[in-house]
Amino acid sequence: MSYVEEMGIKAKAAEIKIASASTMLKNSALSAISAALAENKELIIAENAKDLKAANANGMSVSMQDRLRLDEKRISGMVKGVEELIALNDPIGQVIESFTRPNGLQILKTRVPLGVIGIIYESRPNVTVDAAALCLKAGNAVILKGGKEAVNSNICLGRIMREALEKAGLPADVIQVVDNTSRETTNELMRLNGYLDVLIPRGGARLIQAVVNTATVPVIETGTGNCHVYVDASADLEMAVNITDNGKTQRPSVCNAVESLLVHKDCAEEFLPMIAKRFEEHSVKIYGCDRTREILGSNIAKATDAEYAAEFLDYVISVKVVDSIDEAIEHIRRFGTKHSECIVTRSPENAEKFQRYVDAAAVYVNASTRFTDGGEFGLGAEIGISTQKLHARGPMGLTELTTIKYLINGNGQIR
Amino acid sequence: MSYVEEMGIKAKAAEIKIASASTMLKNSALSAISAALAENKELIIAENAKDLKAANANGMSVSMQDRLRLDEKRISGMVKGVEELIALNDPIGQVIESFTRPNGLQILKTRVPLGVIGIIYESRPNVTVDAAALCLKAGNAVILKGGKEAVNSNICLGRIMREALEKAGLPADVIQVVDNTSRETTNELMRLNGYLDVLIPRGGARLIQAVVNTATVPVIETGTGNCHVYVDASADLEMAVNITDNGKTQRPSVCNAVESLLVHKDCAEEFLPMIAKRFEEHSVKIYGCDRTREILGSNIAKATDAEYAAEFLDYVISVKVVDSIDEAIEHIRRFGTKHSECIVTRSPENAEKFQRYVDAAAVYVNASTRFTDGGEFGLGAEIGISTQKLHARGPMGLTELTTIKYLINGNGQIR
Repeated sequence: MSYVEEMGIKAKAAEIKIASASTMLKNSALSAISAALAENKELIIAENAKDLKAANANGMSVSMQDRLRLDEKRISGMVKGVEELIALNDPIGQVIESFTRPNGLQILKTRVPLGVIGIIYESRPNVTVDAAALCLKAGNAVILKGGKEAVNSNICLGRIMREALEKAGLPADVIQVVDNTSRETTNELMRLNGYLDVLIPRGGARLIQAVVNTATVPVIETGTGNCHVYVDASADLEMAVNITDNGKTQRPSVCNAVESLLVHKDCAEEFLPMIAKRFEEHSVKIYGCDRTREILGSNIAKATDAEYAAEFLDYVISVKVVDSIDEAIEHIRRFGTKHSECIVTRSPENAEKFQRYVDAAAVYVNASTRFTDGGEFGLGAEIGISTQKLHARGPMGLTELTTIKYLINGNGQIR
Repeated sequence: MSYVEEMGIKAKAAEIKIASASTMLKNSALSAISAALAENKELIIAENAKDLKAANANGMSVSMQDRLRLDEKRISGMVKGVEELIALNDPIGQVIESFTRPNGLQILKTRVPLGVIGIIYESRPNVTVDAAALCLKAGNAVILKGGKEAVNSNICLGRIMREALEKAGLPADVIQVVDNTSRETTNELMRLNGYLDVLIPRGGARLIQAVVNTATVPVIETGTGNCHVYVDASADLEMAVNITDNGKTQRPSVCNAVESLLVHKDCAEEFLPMIAKRFEEHSVKIYGCDRTREILGSNIAKATDAEYAAEFLDYVISVKVVDSIDEAIEHIRRFGTKHSECIVTRSPENAEKFQRYVDAAAVYVNASTRFTDGGEFGLGAEIGISTQKLHARGPMGLTELTTIKYLINGNGQIR
């Protein structure tokens, strides 16, 4: 039996306990986890330092190193995140609907945990805690497979959480961290049918694509964000500068950052120099179409389909001047990843048209795409942003980590 | 460009029209379809006769031929099914939630179509109409790939529906029937990422398994039903006979039919001869464990794991005597397909335990598994019974053919 299959068997055994655990028991486990994380800050930082040292030696980019870093503030953030889950309503056991049929059958549609959830993610080790705690609160067992670059941080966080679970009276195997980061192990996890009820990859386009191509278990695609801002002819240009700049530079390494800017030809000559000036402050590199380069100068790099398709996750943006809102929508249909898209406009008709025909989890009018986030939406913690249409779309919170079960009670009914 | 990719492109083009079609337009298309089907009864029966003739020549089993047959009554059933959809509420455009954030952002969670749905199915040609009409009502385009054995019936039904769509003012390509039934075409359909938003296989375990192993598009597994009846020690044995017999023999070719019977040892000696006598009326073949054979005689075939795992879809059943409800639950955890499971008991504790620990879409106490069906649940028409936990579980109606989209309206908000 393989290492991964053993994890699957352990997860299945733990699943039975956590699925039927009371809200009080699950909350006391969350308390134990947050306390243990706070107590072990120094240890976590020390283990994370090993990962950072290796990353630096391997020449990892500055924005990727930022994703990897755990400092006092980020650990406090994780602790606070776990504590906040305690206050959230437990979705499990909820009777969503109940009805009695003419033949006397009583049917209850109830909310139950998904079962065993696999998470494959990159870089950010805080995902280890955020994801595990969310899965636990929704009554699921979880198998976490982080990136090789964060392996010391992840193993340390896993061990702390598992000890806390046992102290709280739950099986440690409710949370398992894969400490073998080989590709073979990852592939096996993607094909762990019979054990995994869902696999959630979190990361860049390459990771998502690998999972989609390899997995035979059900997958929820998350987190690939080639997000656009379209500046309509009627836009408030000052607002458009602020929204575009915020989307691109406030935190470029995350999935709801803006990667591409579309500008209506009627405002391009005025708007492009405004945004270029703002981008200079952050040394944002621009790839532009021919018309962009006519306006901003030929020192601007030329954009090809590769740049329009790219999720840079860095201080880089592609820019295109378009003839119409229809061209903008068409461009987004072609290159977008169904994450977050924004129009800046003063026209209600164009706002409505953009929201209707752009096919994405979140479609904004006159606001930054950076708001696509469970916390910012007021939905509480989330395990990721789903960019597919099945099961969950947009921020995935507790409810998205559950499924339903019909309970039918009769007294001998037959057909 | 391949034949299937061309279908994908056509479906994408049609999707834009159907996704934004009014309820009135969609309903008038459904009316046109039901009228056209009624008008073309003779043609449909003639085309179906070609399929039946070939099936007979190929030695198809009687119960499979039953699935393939379209007679006056079944065509009327399809026509009525389409008409009934007209009365159902249109889920599209519904605002599921709306809220305003402290920063003034107004967030609407709205219901939108899934997009393009692929259906791969076997035998029953009525699926062609049922599935297409449901997808249409929920604003989706659909690509239908039926079995080779029903190809004449399916092409005929597809042509009738496409003509009706055009008469109603919608693109014919909202409904496309794959008329090439090669395996290569099927495999391509399973990997039509970028065009298909979901693929729903309907059929036996082998079909589902092939799709799960091959598909890279999101899949909803449906319709594999290795359903059990567990007769508890405290059961009303007369009721248990009726429920088991109904589950097995009322329509053995469908997915919610009973395939396996588990009997508590304390009532086995009394119950097994009772059910065996009833089964004789339908010539049900029994595969039994050693204890079953001790009670019923060694002329009963011996059951192995293969029989316990089998979905017979025929007048065949596997039987096992168990020591306890725990053994029954464990057996179902091992061999069940998470479809429909039943306990016959007078004990409220055992009923509760069974419903809690059996992991299936529908868990029955004292009623036939044959009720797992959208119509029987009062949910309206369904496209299949989901046996997975993502997105939909149990009968999949109109709502399960939709997804959500967040619309966010601001006035310049940034983070």
